[in-house]
Amino acid sequence: MTNSKTTWKKKLHEIIYEADTPAGKLFDVILLITIIASIVLVMLESVKSIDEEYHAFLNISEWIITILFTIEYIIRVVTVKKPIRYIFSFYGMIDLLSTIPKYISLFFGGIHALAALRALRLLRIFRILKLARYLGASRNLVNALKASRAKIAVFLFAVVIIAIILGTIMYLVEGEENGFTNIPKSVYWCIVTLTTVGFGDIAPQTPFGQFLASIVMVIGYGIIAVPTGIVSAEYTSQSNKKPEPSKSQEPLLHMNSQSCSNCTAEKHKDGAQFCYRCGENL
Amino acid sequence: MTNSKTTWKKKLHEIIYEADTPAGKLFDVILLITIIASIVLVMLESVKSIDEEYHAFLNISEWIITILFTIEYIIRVVTVKKPIRYIFSFYGMIDLLSTIPKYISLFFGGIHALAALRALRLLRIFRILKLARYLGASRNLVNALKASRAKIAVFLFAVVIIAIILGTIMYLVEGEENGFTNIPKSVYWCIVTLTTVGFGDIAPQTPFGQFLASIVMVIGYGIIAVPTGIVSAEYTSQSNKKPEPSKSQEPLLHMNSQSCSNCTAEKHKDGAQFCYRCGENL
Amino acid sequence: MTNSKTTWKKKLHEIIYEADTPAGKLFDVILLITIIASIVLVMLESVKSIDEEYHAFLNISEWIITILFTIEYIIRVVTVKKPIRYIFSFYGMIDLLSTIPKYISLFFGGIHALAALRALRLLRIFRILKLARYLGASRNLVNALKASRAKIAVFLFAVVIIAIILGTIMYLVEGEENGFTNIPKSVYWCIVTLTTVGFGDIAPQTPFGQFLASIVMVIGYGIIAVPTGIVSAEYTSQSNKKPEPSKSQEPLLHMNSQSCSNCTAEKHKDGAQFCYRCGENL
Amino acid sequence: MTNSKTTWKKKLHEIIYEADTPAGKLFDVILLITIIASIVLVMLESVKSIDEEYHAFLNISEWIITILFTIEYIIRVVTVKKPIRYIFSFYGMIDLLSTIPKYISLFFGGIHALAALRALRLLRIFRILKLARYLGASRNLVNALKASRAKIAVFLFAVVIIAIILGTIMYLVEGEENGFTNIPKSVYWCIVTLTTVGFGDIAPQTPFGQFLASIVMVIGYGIIAVPTGIVSAEYTSQSNKKPEPSKSQEPLLHMNSQSCSNCTAEKHKDGAQFCYRCGENL
Repeated sequence: MTNSKTTWKKKLHEIIYEADTPAGKLFDVILLITIIASIVLVMLESVKSIDEEYHAFLNISEWIITILFTIEYIIRVVTVKKPIRYIFSFYGMIDLLSTIPKYISLFFGGIHALAALRALRLLRIFRILKLARYLGASRNLVNALKASRAKIAVFLFAVVIIAIILGTIMYLVEGEENGFTNIPKSVYWCIVTLTTVGFGDIAPQTPFGQFLASIVMVIGYGIIAVPTGIVSAEYTSQSNKKPEPSKSQEPLLHMNSQSCSNCTAEKHKDGAQFCYRCGENL
Repeated sequence: MTNSKTTWKKKLHEIIYEADTPAGKLFDVILLITIIASIVLVMLESVKSIDEEYHAFLNISEWIITILFTIEYIIRVVTVKKPIRYIFSFYGMIDLLSTIPKYISLFFGGIHALAALRALRLLRIFRILKLARYLGASRNLVNALKASRAKIAVFLFAVVIIAIILGTIMYLVEGEENGFTNIPKSVYWCIVTLTTVGFGDIAPQTPFGQFLASIVMVIGYGIIAVPTGIVSAEYTSQSNKKPEPSKSQEPLLHMNSQSCSNCTAEKHKDGAQFCYRCGENL
Repeated sequence: MTNSKTTWKKKLHEIIYEADTPAGKLFDVILLITIIASIVLVMLESVKSIDEEYHAFLNISEWIITILFTIEYIIRVVTVKKPIRYIFSFYGMIDLLSTIPKYISLFFGGIHALAALRALRLLRIFRILKLARYLGASRNLVNALKASRAKIAVFLFAVVIIAIILGTIMYLVEGEENGFTNIPKSVYWCIVTLTTVGFGDIAPQTPFGQFLASIVMVIGYGIIAVPTGIVSAEYTSQSNKKPEPSKSQEPLLHMNSQSCSNCTAEKHKDGAQFCYRCGENL
Repeated sequence: MTNSKTTWKKKLHEIIYEADTPAGKLFDVILLITIIASIVLVMLESVKSIDEEYHAFLNISEWIITILFTIEYIIRVVTVKKPIRYIFSFYGMIDLLSTIPKYISLFFGGIHALAALRALRLLRIFRILKLARYLGASRNLVNALKASRAKIAVFLFAVVIIAIILGTIMYLVEGEENGFTNIPKSVYWCIVTLTTVGFGDIAPQTPFGQFLASIVMVIGYGIIAVPTGIVSAEYTSQSNKKPEPSKSQEPLLHMNSQSCSNCTAEKHKDGAQFCYRCGENL
């Protein structure tokens, strides 16, 4: 009986954690639709006029989705060999956090912030898509971003320092009567302007302030070239680097979607018989 | 007589569908002017002050253009050997849809939305320009865009997810009293900010909201580098790829503007005697 | 005497049209300062509060500058061998147009538009800087822009068509009560949004309008990558193309600032004895 | 005794000016925290509501930081062999200017502008980070920016000229009644629009003004490609240039943070025994 139970467990594990079998694919599609539906629900609930009219419908739908997610969560915990490792994994936490808000609302009423916690469900989409695989084609891009990470950090750091210094100057020039009520707000305005967003809720009124603002804008316009230049240059060099694109692409395409039932590790090679991390028989 | 009729049909087909003969070129120029004139008419009609003063003139002009388009449509249907194929082709649909609104307005009065349908006429310009040919020089660009399509899709998908998550957070932080009345509106604000458009119709009012907004802006400013980097890198690699630019360019330049009278297929080779798609004698 | 007069003329020509002699350089510097001063004057005059207080001073300064420009213009006409050619040249027209407004104001009073005509003086700066030479280092850039001209034209054409179609749709969706009073205004809003400027004087109010606006913004955000990609790729290929950078740079650096006294042609080679265009002895 | 005093001096010099010893590192970390704390203080002080409630706390904190900075400044002057050179160096001036405002406020009261002078402290962060070293990875970027400096200057010059000419035209078209009260303001608006910031505090109202504004925006949208193209192309060529990346990177990584106690020169090689600038024994 233990054996049959294990087989049953294994089958469920295959359906939920993998996408190789038809049942596994179906499960993924249903989960994807449920997640998107639940995100739409969260959004609609926040619209007052809709919530007032369809409150009952929204509430029931939310309960159905919450229960579905609860069942899924329990099965996930049960079918994995090391449940603790799953529960405290990144996706395990998200699965839990995006499920419990509705239960908590039973005891404490509809706390605003809790409802929004459900937006975390969006992050679950990444698991289904097995994003790494879909990104296959864009691996160069990810590498380029990684390679230029340090430079972009330096760049953003420079932007923040420029914003603080220029923001302080604008605060002195424009003063409180023109909306630059304090330095933090001035710095906020400076970031709004440097990034060429330009809300216009605060705008310089004095001629000298407008002159300074012009300089801020031209600086912002000029430095927008820097991250772009970094990324595109890195991306070009990434593209040139790969000597055998067909070869480096291959393992990715042939990598299967199986995940170890013991440690939830993924990206096993196609013919792999044992988990590369824990040695578990796949 | 059937023969002479066929000749007459063939001649008209040559004038309307092709641009190789002087008559065909003249027809294209006249059509181009008519289309632009009709677009200007649609625009002017929507301006109340102009419509009130010149209503009669605009109405008559619109009728003249509609009748011209109707005649053109009928000739197109008649001169093509397989009219059904033309009628249900992309351009056939646009030709019809951009012509009928005025007739419908006879029976139902000037329905607003119908008038705008006429803006579809703009799409007809593409046919005249035989865009593919004009784009000849920019083929690398089109290829680069195609090659980076998947990556840009991933990128836009990421932007939407970021917008939903940050929008939900902003909704919680700012609340309804500061214009973030519901999550969809918050997400809308987030897209406005991420894309550095920044209308300013909604703007964060609380210090913490402004701090978060600054982060949103810097993220938006940073990620604008990504599609640019992709496109320019792909474009560079496209430019380097073509080994014999003179050769690959040639067929395009020598490609003629003839289109098969049977199946409306275009891009026949210069000396081609038969349609490459249906074998019809050109 | 005719000979001495010719010598005198030649000297003046050398001072005004060239920058090789110390006197010629001094003249250029003085002219540069005068032009900038006159632009500042035009700007200050338009500021009401300043104009009211310093009207007399501004008026006298303007007269002094106008007279200086008049003298310069007369000398230019006199010292050139073919004055007619100079008068109807691009710079000849600008010299005249930027000088006469003050005289006309004597007879007709200070006509608004005339005052602004003086802003054309700005264009004269280009002559002094002998821009082509200063741009020497950026020749690759100019070549890259020229090479990508056709593609950018196609791109801008596509932007305008997108703006007209989306503008018409927004007009139908939002309607007059939300600021989209007519199609031209809607198209204007669409360009404001597509280019990520986002004034916010018109902003969508209905949820569906905001949804459409989000799409417009994401499109605008995406297509900003295209011209950047084109320019940077072309620029890279331009940089790689030049096989002997030292050689191709040389003629430019050694090109002198002499201009033919007969036909005002410039860019003569350094040791050139005769004008390459009209054969005049330099 | 002089000897022991010199040793004591040397030790302090090592702690303050260098980051090789544990004590030196600790000093840098404490200084970094103090600087950030003092910047936050300046910001909070400018927020009225916070200043009113916590005035005493902020004042005392500011005094503590000022005294700490004073002690640091005195030690710096004492331990350096050529104090005059330090005092008039770039960082020496910043150290002084960012310390004295609080003392001056004792005599003259809290002058507004003085408080902001303290924002200069931010610049001191660069010294601690020994920025050059952190930038190591981004040296290509700095080189690319240097190489494209001239071209970007030409570009910005062109932007300013375009802004002045278009600004003048917009002033004539829109006039004072629509917010374009004078030419400088019009030019300001033009820069706001060209850089795609778009505050919306001034926006064209007349149809023709909106048409011109559309052109301004499309120009701005188009020319944003230019600096980006320059930087990314230069950056790519910089990346390709370096033939032995491992070698050129090496000296940087092995460069130590020692600075000469005599002339404050930095960037000594790792095994260096004498200052490369003044020959002082390190």
